[in-house]
Amino acid sequence: MFRYRIDIEYDGFAYAGWQRQADQHTVQAAIEQAVQAFSGEQCSLRGAGRTDAGVHATGQVAHLDLSREWKADKVRDAINAHLRLRGERVSILAASAVGPDFDARFSARSRHYIYRILNRRSPPALELGKVWWVPKSLDPEAMHEAAQPLLGKHDFTTFRSAQCQANSPLRTLDRLDVIRTGDLIEIHASARSFLHNQVRSMVGSLKRVGEGGWPVDGVKMALEACDRSACAGIAPPEGLYLVRVDYDD
Amino acid sequence: MFRYRIDIEYDGFAYAGWQRQADQHTVQAAIEQAVQAFSGEQCSLRGAGRTDAGVHATGQVAHLDLSREWKADKVRDAINAHLRLRGERVSILAASAVGPDFDARFSARSRHYIYRILNRRSPPALELGKVWWVPKSLDPEAMHEAAQPLLGKHDFTTFRSAQCQANSPLRTLDRLDVIRTGDLIEIHASARSFLHNQVRSMVGSLKRVGEGGWPVDGVKMALEACDRSACAGIAPPEGLYLVRVDYDD
Repeated sequence: MFRYRIDIEYDGFAYAGWQRQADQHTVQAAIEQAVQAFSGEQCSLRGAGRTDAGVHATGQVAHLDLSREWKADKVRDAINAHLRLRGERVSILAASAVGPDFDARFSARSRHYIYRILNRRSPPALELGKVWWVPKSLDPEAMHEAAQPLLGKHDFTTFRSAQCQANSPLRTLDRLDVIRTGDLIEIHASARSFLHNQVRSMVGSLKRVGEGGWPVDGVKMALEACDRSACAGIAPPEGLYLVRVDYDD
Repeated sequence: MFRYRIDIEYDGFAYAGWQRQADQHTVQAAIEQAVQAFSGEQCSLRGAGRTDAGVHATGQVAHLDLSREWKADKVRDAINAHLRLRGERVSILAASAVGPDFDARFSARSRHYIYRILNRRSPPALELGKVWWVPKSLDPEAMHEAAQPLLGKHDFTTFRSAQCQANSPLRTLDRLDVIRTGDLIEIHASARSFLHNQVRSMVGSLKRVGEGGWPVDGVKMALEACDRSACAGIAPPEGLYLVRVDYDD
């Protein structure tokens, strides 16, 4: 078998998430169907991040195995051609041949997400479905300060979906920066891996601080409670982007 | 009568352009209907730029007259509420009370457009309908150099739609910069006013230079021909944004 790594952009609005499902259209299924259309082979994709319905990606990574050897650029262009034919909102940014020990999910050293909040009185027209619209003015400095105690290794039970299937609630958060540029507040989150809904749960609690509903140390207190009900709320999926996955060379 | 200036963002993909038409839905009609829904008054909007079908705006300006006096913020919020109710892809960014001598179209001192080209091999997923996708690699330095002879006052007949209703083909171009950032090439165009399809016609010719089909001085030669058939082509509407209109205080 020949293994290929593919780097993927998608508009999550059109899909019931990354992961293949019996009755709903997903990003994984869209790509697997395009691979079959060009190669005649049924493949099973493995992605670095199983993004939820509505969540976007500009840097998702996946791998697939094919019995025939292709030029990597041909794999990229052929999948894209079939995705476009079907009107999918998915694009293969790059494809490369990799060794059999490369695993898009298990070899990932670091995952990077950006959460985008449009913080202005007027609703989005051009960015509808691409940002979380928060009309009430937020304080990004307070949000940034509130985020810093989450860095490092912690029990993230508070910021974890009840459906999370991970064995352990322990994760090590490497970055959680809140940056305002004009009307846009971007929250940059990096870790080796995240629990289910962890970024959206952290963002929901940071937003509570930003609007003045919690003091700056409210997020730290919520973390220390190790109790899902201490989470201030979960941010909607449309603001979340998987932007990069890092691997060892 | 009380006059209001409104600043507007819209996703042009959903509309047959700015200008009201008998049988098609337009941005102007969407806003006029929302104004009537909140105020009970039929108004006629005048916009600074009559953008074509598919063309976007982040900074369109228009004015309207109402017989009743409202707080300007109330005008903004009430129009937005009715636009959202109707699922319009239009948002009022700001509203302000202005004097009877303010005319969004005729008082405009300068109009600023940005044209966005996504220049990469892979098609857009997230930016579909928001950029012109050009897969072949373009040379932005050559495009920028080719653009500079268009600055100043010229007869722009070459870059003017056959349907253009302006009395004169003379216009004064103040800025035409080509700037590459990653995969995105942005073309910034500023002038007191533009002819119909002028920006898209200039961009179509600059793209011809960028792909090597014309020499750098090809755009200058096309200008000097003063002949519509000398234009290399018209760029599609989905890359064009009206981003700002300037007025004297």
